[in-house]
Amino acid sequence: MSILENKEQKFTSISNLGEFGLIDQITEDIKHYHKTTIKGVGDDAAVIKLGDLCQVISTDMLIEGVHFDLAYAPLKHLGYKAVIVNLSDICAMNVIPTQITVSIALSNRFPVEAVEELYAGVKLACKHYKIDLIGGDTTSSISGLMISVTAMGTSKEEDIVYRSGAKEKDLIVATGDLGGAYLGLQILEREKAVFMENKNMQPDLHGSEYVLERQLKPEARKDIVEMFKKMDLKPTSMIDISDGLSSELLHLSKTSDLGLQVYEEKIPVDPTVMTIAEEFSLNGVTCALNGGEDYELLFTISQKDYDKIKGNPNMTVIGYMSEKNAGANLITHDSKVMPLTAHGWNSLKKNDKD
Amino acid sequence: MSILENKEQKFTSISNLGEFGLIDQITEDIKHYHKTTIKGVGDDAAVIKLGDLCQVISTDMLIEGVHFDLAYAPLKHLGYKAVIVNLSDICAMNVIPTQITVSIALSNRFPVEAVEELYAGVKLACKHYKIDLIGGDTTSSISGLMISVTAMGTSKEEDIVYRSGAKEKDLIVATGDLGGAYLGLQILEREKAVFMENKNMQPDLHGSEYVLERQLKPEARKDIVEMFKKMDLKPTSMIDISDGLSSELLHLSKTSDLGLQVYEEKIPVDPTVMTIAEEFSLNGVTCALNGGEDYELLFTISQKDYDKIKGNPNMTVIGYMSEKNAGANLITHDSKVMPLTAHGWNSLKKNDKD
Repeated sequence: MSILENKEQKFTSISNLGEFGLIDQITEDIKHYHKTTIKGVGDDAAVIKLGDLCQVISTDMLIEGVHFDLAYAPLKHLGYKAVIVNLSDICAMNVIPTQITVSIALSNRFPVEAVEELYAGVKLACKHYKIDLIGGDTTSSISGLMISVTAMGTSKEEDIVYRSGAKEKDLIVATGDLGGAYLGLQILEREKAVFMENKNMQPDLHGSEYVLERQLKPEARKDIVEMFKKMDLKPTSMIDISDGLSSELLHLSKTSDLGLQVYEEKIPVDPTVMTIAEEFSLNGVTCALNGGEDYELLFTISQKDYDKIKGNPNMTVIGYMSEKNAGANLITHDSKVMPLTAHGWNSLKKNDKD
Repeated sequence: MSILENKEQKFTSISNLGEFGLIDQITEDIKHYHKTTIKGVGDDAAVIKLGDLCQVISTDMLIEGVHFDLAYAPLKHLGYKAVIVNLSDICAMNVIPTQITVSIALSNRFPVEAVEELYAGVKLACKHYKIDLIGGDTTSSISGLMISVTAMGTSKEEDIVYRSGAKEKDLIVATGDLGGAYLGLQILEREKAVFMENKNMQPDLHGSEYVLERQLKPEARKDIVEMFKKMDLKPTSMIDISDGLSSELLHLSKTSDLGLQVYEEKIPVDPTVMTIAEEFSLNGVTCALNGGEDYELLFTISQKDYDKIKGNPNMTVIGYMSEKNAGANLITHDSKVMPLTAHGWNSLKKNDKD
């Protein structure tokens, strides 16, 4: 009798554990057999050593109805985004991505032309980022569309940056601005709801171009990795901001075994994001902390390297690493110290709520 | 308006193209930007160069309802098989696999214990084959279970064997025996149908152990790759037998731009497979040619290397490569020359039929 049919045994719902809890449970007893495996599970990407060089590798899956809604995500954008999400993980290791594989499963409601649209987006991302599409799998599904992408890049071992490695007093830096992708999603969901009520309604997207682009056509910060090389700057730790700033800060804190203090007023939020957040009765900074899918980079640098990034419009110092006992906190505008909690987007919990 | 909603434009059904036709269409205009990409789409695995070594990489997706049925595939076996399918592709490049990533998407009908069962199978395969599980993704799905695995191995460039490379008069060799996995599937489907009719019926699996194991718990021929190293033998071309012997022979013929002649009486089929095939009014050799999922290796060697494999119980010479104009043929027991056709298992066509 299979687990799925056994009604007597007591079972644990995955949503109780959440994605990170489940991953912890699955990976706790993993053994490595090869010295060439430099880094396995637990960072933005794995690292394998080949001779004098390392291969950095990361994989992500996008599932229809969980990660995207074809009611408002054009297939070409979706193909583009599926690649970006993975390139971002390679960039977060301080490595330039160079190859991907793309696997898709799709039901027979999709014609060949839909697959071509999706791949037009994949190939556009490959062109923009100079990525070789080297393989994949194409299969049918019973329902819906799934995309699984694996991205790779090559690096010297000493240039790779991990989530761990931050030191006390290191500065915490975020690239670009945050919260936009989350608000883009709110607008798309609002307009979908309006359209469902009245199919003659045209979507009202005026003034929302920036946040919609952040949601539908994000970019990976390969340019930042290139900047680091030019600046001769190696961050002490790094992670990409895919699940919301708060969740990523907690990862850095945990893996580096340190506390951290982040200033609310320093968190980079675009003025458009602030305005649109208000329309939704939200706080822009909360969107940055708990939204997701911005695909910016979060990293730490030694204070002695501060001059290298000073005045760089792509980078904002938002706080500093502190001793472990101080905890991971947000210092609010009115100087209150609030412990950071991860409300980041979690597909496994979300599924249970819906 | 999206492609999925546009009713006026004429669309092409994917099942008309089939998996290989769709892949050809998607990949025809792929450009490579990096000299380090030695081999992209079009073989069992892609090849990336890093310094003096190469990384060989392959990915496959298994979808519930298309590639497996949880009514008879135990989750642990499924996890094991998902790994094997991918290791087999690395072995088919003459490379020992060393690392995998495993991504799963699953609906909330699966408890944590089901995920643990699945990973118990993944980890068992990792233990048997000395594979490091280095990453993956865990997410929810709207319905069903999907598993996407990427496997990797490291090799010197000169040791890698491609599908292309066979020369005229080279011998064609198959490992193990064929057709068993397909018959295993027939038995499981028959017993499922019986059970659906009468839920008190116990499955009648007596005497079918071999073919059931071939279907539910296949193995990758890593041992063959190790034998090649010991024998100092490098095949001139190689492919794994995942879609049926016929389909794989046609791949070798096409990529090597040669004809080939295969003798029906030489095709290795286990006596059990012959007997069970008769129960289903099938021909054992037809199961070997058009069934799938045997995960044996098909390779060619120069005639001068014949002595190295002579008498090896794991390897059977089944034919030879011939000039292109002779075509790819099966020579039957009664010396008839039959052109080979690919009736191999095709998930994209299958979905349309069902």
